[in-house]
Order: sequence, then C-alpha cells, then structure tokens
Amino acid sequence: MFVEGGLCCSMNEFLESIPRHPSKALTDRFAGDPSVINLTVGEPDFAPPALLVDRLQEILQLARAPVNQYVHRYAATRGLPALRTSIADLYERRYGLRLDPDNNILVTNGAAEAIWLSIFTLTNAGDEVLLPDPCYMLYEPITRVLGRHAVRIKTDIADGFTMKVKDVEAALSSRSRLLVINSPANPTGVVYSPYALEELARLAKESGICVVHDEVFDHCIYEGSHASIPALISGASHGIAVNSFSKTFGMTGWRLGWMIASHDVVAAAAKAHSYMCLAAATVPQLAAADVLASQEIGAYIEANTKRLQERSHYFTQAISRIPGFECPLGPPKAGFYAFVKVGTFYQQQRLRPGTDGSVSMGVVEALLDRCKVATVPGNAFGAMGEGFIRISFAASVTQLDEAIRRINEAFGK
Amino acid sequence: MFVEGGLCCSMNEFLESIPRHPSKALTDRFAGDPSVINLTVGEPDFAPPALLVDRLQEILQLARAPVNQYVHRYAATRGLPALRTSIADLYERRYGLRLDPDNNILVTNGAAEAIWLSIFTLTNAGDEVLLPDPCYMLYEPITRVLGRHAVRIKTDIADGFTMKVKDVEAALSSRSRLLVINSPANPTGVVYSPYALEELARLAKESGICVVHDEVFDHCIYEGSHASIPALISGASHGIAVNSFSKTFGMTGWRLGWMIASHDVVAAAAKAHSYMCLAAATVPQLAAADVLASQEIGAYIEANTKRLQERSHYFTQAISRIPGFECPLGPPKAGFYAFVKVGTFYQQQRLRPGTDGSVSMGVVEALLDRCKVATVPGNAFGAMGEGFIRISFAASVTQLDEAIRRINEAFGK
Repeated sequence: MFVEGGLCCSMNEFLESIPRHPSKALTDRFAGDPSVINLTVGEPDFAPPALLVDRLQEILQLARAPVNQYVHRYAATRGLPALRTSIADLYERRYGLRLDPDNNILVTNGAAEAIWLSIFTLTNAGDEVLLPDPCYMLYEPITRVLGRHAVRIKTDIADGFTMKVKDVEAALSSRSRLLVINSPANPTGVVYSPYALEELARLAKESGICVVHDEVFDHCIYEGSHASIPALISGASHGIAVNSFSKTFGMTGWRLGWMIASHDVVAAAAKAHSYMCLAAATVPQLAAADVLASQEIGAYIEANTKRLQERSHYFTQAISRIPGFECPLGPPKAGFYAFVKVGTFYQQQRLRPGTDGSVSMGVVEALLDRCKVATVPGNAFGAMGEGFIRISFAASVTQLDEAIRRINEAFGK
Repeated sequence: MFVEGGLCCSMNEFLESIPRHPSKALTDRFAGDPSVINLTVGEPDFAPPALLVDRLQEILQLARAPVNQYVHRYAATRGLPALRTSIADLYERRYGLRLDPDNNILVTNGAAEAIWLSIFTLTNAGDEVLLPDPCYMLYEPITRVLGRHAVRIKTDIADGFTMKVKDVEAALSSRSRLLVINSPANPTGVVYSPYALEELARLAKESGICVVHDEVFDHCIYEGSHASIPALISGASHGIAVNSFSKTFGMTGWRLGWMIASHDVVAAAAKAHSYMCLAAATVPQLAAADVLASQEIGAYIEANTKRLQERSHYFTQAISRIPGFECPLGPPKAGFYAFVKVGTFYQQQRLRPGTDGSVSMGVVEALLDRCKVATVPGNAFGAMGEGFIRISFAASVTQLDEAIRRINEAFGK
C-alpha cells in the first residue's frame, strides 16, 4: 500500500503560490455530467484531415518491417528534418519568410511547450514579461512558476482589446525582457493588423526586448489579415513565433507545435527542450510533415474556416438576442470563441457575485447551475476580462441552439 | 528572408552556462556516416510489441468514425485514466504497491520529463540535489538549468558503483532536498539491492529529503532483484519513482513515461506539467494502456530480457579479450551498456588525451577515428567515470562482432 506520509519535503514555492485556476474547479464541477453542454473547450470540433490518419496508419504498417523500426526511436532534438522543412515551406508560402530548417525551427510538444521555452530561454529570475490583459490563460502561470514577473498591459473593448504602443512603452522597465502577443487572440477573437504588430515589434526592438508571437489561430481567420512577427521585423533575433498543429488540423491531442526564432534562440531553447523531454514523438512528426507538405490540405483548411466563420456569425447573432448579452465587437474575427459582455445581463437578472466575488463567475455559475451550460469567466484571462464570459462555438449547431434555448428558458425571454 | 540580427535580448544564464556536452559534439562528428558502427545509443534494438502497433492502428481506424474523434483531443492533464489504472496494476503486480490511479500517478513525456518535474517540483533556486557520480547524463544539466546545485556522490568500481550511506550522509547540508537514485543504473549496469535502497531511503527520510528513483531499466535485469523505492519506504511522500515505456517496450520515440508519488507531489507536478505541455499525447496513451494490461506482454518482455542477457555475456567476454579492455564487474547486471575500463588500453596503445584532455575521450576518439566505432566517454557521466567508456550492446551480433574485429585489427591483437 502506498503510504501517504505528511510531506516534509520542501516544495517549489512558485508552484505552490499559484492558485488552482477557478475555471479548473468549475470544470471539475460538471465533469462526467452528460447533461451539461460544454462550451468551455479550447479545441476545434472538426476531425484531423483524413490524410493525417492515412499517413499514421501507413507509417505504422511499414514499421512492422524491421528496416523501418526507426520510427519508434527518438527523433532529433530539434524535430525531424522533414517536418522542419515542411514548416519552413509553409512560412515561405504564407509569409514570404525564408527559414533555415536546421537553425530557425524547433519542434515542441504543442504551442504550450514553445511558449514555456520562449520564456524560459530569454529571461532570468526576476525579469519581467509583458502580457496583454486579457490573454490566454497559460502565459501568466508559466511566467510566475519560473520566478519571472508578469506585467499586464491593459486592453479594453474600446480599443478592440489590442495593446497600444504607448501602454507597452509605459509598462517597460529595466527588467523587461519579453512581450507576448497573441494574435489572433484567445479569448477575444481579435486580429492585430500587420501595422499594429510592426509598431509593437519596432518598440520592442528599440527597447532591446524580444517579442513572442503566439499565432496558433493563424489559419482560423475570418476578417482582417494576419502577419507573423518574425516576417515583419528585421533583426529577427527579436521576433519569435509560436505555432501548432492543434487548432488548424483539429489534432490537439497529438501535442505537436513549433517555435520559429533566430539560430541562437533556437539553439538555447533546443538545449532546454532536450533536458525536458529529449524530443517530440517521432511518428506524429512524420505524418504531420506529410500533411503540411500536401497540396490538398488547403481545401481542408478552407472548408473548416468557412464553417467556423458561418457559425461565428450565426452564434454571435443568436447570443446577442439574449437580453443583456452583448457582443460589441461583432462576430469574432478569428478563432472559435465569443467573448460576451454580460454586465447588463448580470444586473437585469439580479445575479449574485460568483464564488470568486466576480460578475463573470456569477454569470458562469448561474448558466451552469440553471441551464447546464458551461462557459469560462472572462476574468480567468485577466482582470480586464471581468464582466465578460468566453463561449466556445466549436460545437455542433444543435448543441449551440440547445444552449441558447436553455438560457432563454431559464432567464425568461 | 529571416534576418539574423545580433542578439540583444538577454538569455537564461543557467542555460548559457551549461556547456554543450562533449559527447554531443562527438555524435555530430559521425552523424550521417554509414560506415560508423554506432554503439552510443540509449535505445534498445528490439521492436515494440506487435500489440502496440495493432492497437495504434485499430484506434486510428476507429477514430475515422466521428464518435471516436475524441482520441485526437487533449487527454486529462495527469494522463488517461485507463493508462493510470494499468500503471497502478503493474506496480501492484510487481511490487505489491497499491497506488491510487487518480492521485499517485502522472503520465509524462518520457522519464526525462518526470525527472525534470521531480526536481522542479521539490526544490527551489539554490537548493541542492544529490546525484551519484557517475550517473545518467541528464540529471546534472536539469538540476543546473533550474538554478539548483548538483552535489555529486562519488562511487567507484571497488564499491560496485553504488552510493554508500555514509557518503550520502557526508554530502548532506541544510540545502539538500533531493537524492536521485538510478537503479538499474546507466551507465554502469549496476542494480542496487533492496536492502541498499532501503538504507538510502531511510537516511533520506530521516534527513527530511526526498528520493527520486529512476527505474527505467526495471524490466531489463539479468542478475539481482529490483525493488521500487515507493514500495520500500513508509511515509511514501519521500519516495518518487520515475519510469517509462521506452526501454521495456522498445518505444523510445513515443515519449511516454510516468511518475509515481504522493498525492501532494503529483498535484504540484501535474500543475507544472500542464504549464509545460498541457498533457501527454492521447492515442499513444490509449495503446500503451492496453499493452500494459495485456496478459501476453510478459512473454515479450521475457524474450527481450533473455536475448539482452545472452548478448551481455557474449559481448562482455568478447570485449574483455581485447588487450587492455577490462570489465572488472563482469557482465552488466541490467540494461544494455558495457562500462569498460580502458586505462590499461590507453597506456598500452600510447594514446593521447582526448580533445577534453581526458583518457576516456582519448580512447573514444581513437576508436572513432581508427575503427569507426562510436562509443561514449565515461567522464560524460561524471568525473568518476573517467578512465571508462560506455559501449551499448543493443545492436546486432553482426555489428558487435564487426566492431570488435575492427578494434582488434586497428590496435593489433
């Protein structure tokens, strides 16, 4: 029997100091309840391309021959050369950016590891990492658990939830090292214009800090045009892009992402990557390389984007008809989340603050308790998200309609 | 074009301070040269069980149905419940240790991540981690890159390369937090007796430090009996086991390992794991769960162990016949490395010190340059490995024979 003694060992104090995410506790509350419509998920609802599954099966079949057993062995630390070449080709095709597959690319366990590595590689204890508020949930805990300081740059709906140069400038200090930009953005669905990105990149360069551009939603854009920071900024040591197969190819569970950076940053990050996990898994890399290189994959991406865009319009309209739900920015320009303003709803329905004392959580808990519809409180993404909730529309239309029906029924339209 | 500007950004100073491993530079020297017999590898040469490939293919086939698409989605942070249950069953079967799959197990990207997480979770900057000398190459860089201090416990061939309680005791300080034990050990092939492990575990417990037991070779043992630290030590918060599918099932490239620990350590490590990569990949976990649970897998493991044991005897004998090559501990008791004493060979052959000034590297470079046989210098595992080289016998008998033939030819038997 495993005896649970009292822990006398010391624990990592940064790890201990980060509270469990309130939205995690929420997820636990409805886990396993099939009657709940789960609109919290950060995953697309479409399947990976058939080509991925075809290739995985082929590789596995071929690997039954002893000569192909190598597919079960370690990949190179930086990733399989074939995959790095496919990624380089993608960036040249899409952004006109020529990368050296050997020196500018590191294949990681999803974008999450690439973000971790960016922060770990380019900062020291006590350094400051500038993050938008609101922003993707993981940036701040990664920063804090490494003993770095998260400095939040406030954005609000009046500015379309984009960071302004003057606000970043005002937040700079002698300890600033990194600025993280998430565009297209989760949870707001905002796409920074190439001009806005260039301005931020220029400021970063002039200030001697690096920019990490998390662009995992770069293939789910419905409005506006996307640019990748390393393609915009000359003296590209300053610009790092983080991307992944997860959202574009509906394959979150395969944990495959990458980092684009200058050779010295890649060399240092690869060192840390090798200490953390040696390399990413081999077979998924082989199959993913073929998916990226395929001519036919454009049609798959286009079809998914079109479907998500239609749903984004449909859902934004439907949700805006719920009294007190507001989508002041209109349908999201990218991604698969509606970031809904619920302050009026909260007041009209005379709701109580949530278990964390916030309006966001109050609404989320009311929707969960009274409609069995699960959403994420906006303040989980930063203080500036307070008064909002994030609703994923990467669900079937039937589920979305049922969710809206339940909300209308419970809150009496 | 990606412009490589001079790096103005700061870099992680711990990462920068760790020199590139000399043996890595060596690997680069022969990469892509097919005439080199590579006996450096840390991978078994047998294929994964057919059952693994069967299950992977089945899961992928089933996942073509929309209802099974979930296999392409995120797994739970701690790992799929089915896999954690299989791991718990394995530990109960093998070690009589009853684990709670929900609270005592974390599935990781290989044992490497489990080691990283153990050190990260249980120490703070400046803390000391006690490591054997020699030991597996990654322990020290992981420790140092996290800003912790590695304190080496010397072992030598007279003591069978096992740490003595009195030496660990002498190395303890107020900053000691963790003791890492690798048994069966890489590179020495030594297996600590259950009694020796228990003594070390007791000392650790009395001293208020934790023990991390890396037992990735626990299924490749030819002599002696293995015990798992968490099964030996009451008040098990002190004992952590790290293990993996890599060596047992010939599937290093799938990056699947685990950590066994008390609920509070698992909870904290799972938090860090979620920041680093969210979760391990889903499909490999599903297949691995079935492999572990299978009744037939015992025969597969037994056959591989038997084959490796035969090769261990054969190779140790053959290599000992090379004048100046000595295997004073006899055939390795576990794993697939011969740790060969080469001081006499170095003297008899009047070799020069290697590029790092060492005897080990001198011999390794001579073998590579004159016989195209690649091995690893013993000092890559710690100062106490100086005078030794590590030769993997996880290669075909044809390759091993050819390697010995070349050495004999070049160094004139």
